[in-house]
Amino acid sequence: MDVITAIHTRRSVRAYTDARVDAEAVRTMLAAAMTAPSAGNGQPWEFIIVDDAARMAKIPEIHPYAGMAPKAPLGILVCGNTAKEKYPGFWVQDCSAATENLLLAAVGSGLGAVWLGVYPVQDRVAAFAAFFELPEKVIPLSFVVIGHPKQEQQRQDRFDAAKTHLNAWQKGKFPQF
Amino acid sequence: MDVITAIHTRRSVRAYTDARVDAEAVRTMLAAAMTAPSAGNGQPWEFIIVDDAARMAKIPEIHPYAGMAPKAPLGILVCGNTAKEKYPGFWVQDCSAATENLLLAAVGSGLGAVWLGVYPVQDRVAAFAAFFELPEKVIPLSFVVIGHPKQEQQRQDRFDAAKTHLNAWQKGKFPQF
Repeated sequence: MDVITAIHTRRSVRAYTDARVDAEAVRTMLAAAMTAPSAGNGQPWEFIIVDDAARMAKIPEIHPYAGMAPKAPLGILVCGNTAKEKYPGFWVQDCSAATENLLLAAVGSGLGAVWLGVYPVQDRVAAFAAFFELPEKVIPLSFVVIGHPKQEQQRQDRFDAAKTHLNAWQKGKFPQF
Repeated sequence: MDVITAIHTRRSVRAYTDARVDAEAVRTMLAAAMTAPSAGNGQPWEFIIVDDAARMAKIPEIHPYAGMAPKAPLGILVCGNTAKEKYPGFWVQDCSAATENLLLAAVGSGLGAVWLGVYPVQDRVAAFAAFFELPEKVIPLSFVVIGHPKQEQQRQDRFDAAKTHLNAWQKGKFPQF
């Protein structure tokens, strides 16, 4: 699938068929995530693959918006490993770019996914860290729930010229917008 | 270009030809950025398009790694608008996903780009905010320098099985890795 189409058809998908996610797609998504840009190319990330149905069933106990998780075949917890940061303070951006790549690779693999925010909500961070037995320097950023979507996603374009500025905040608009 | 190929050929591009970036590509990149996921779909972002050569020439004065900026035809400053956040604390993640979409749309448009980190380095944040006359609640996250790349980018795959974990930190590895 074309990259621009993938970006515009990526939606938060919360309803899945019963089909499993095959191992090749899991690798494709993780390779995409790990090829994201990162500060100083530090790649300060770790990924917990969750394919155990009993564990997926418990995710709603630690995240308030995870009602879809028990019916999903797969989850991936994206974590920052602050011990691997080259430029302190950038791990959130690095792991967010990785999460977005993961979501786009899901679309490109015919899958649907939803990004559940964990960090910086402290009780969620603590609950995910405990549930997944993370070491102290590994911080959960996002939990991505993944499956085969029940419905096809419509293309959308959220371009908004009002959010663009030319050369400085007040100077004007890009003439072609 | 295929989404998976775009993800794997996106590199930090710092050498550009003299060609301008056309308006259609600018819109494509900004539409991609604005279609990124965001917490509660709050879309708390703003974009400063920089096409003024005199302003691009001054970027190295406010960023230590912006030596390529004076020779680039275009820059885009990605900012968080904290007044538009639906879930406080998530704007960095939202704007990082937007930045990654922008970079991938650049690749899909035949362009090359590099993500220069601004936030959370406080002197850079202050310098960019002053230079671009940002209001108080608008915080610069990243400055993306964009042009037509002088060289073709090689595909890379940073997949690293050592950064994967199955169902919990210590439980084991995904069997197919």
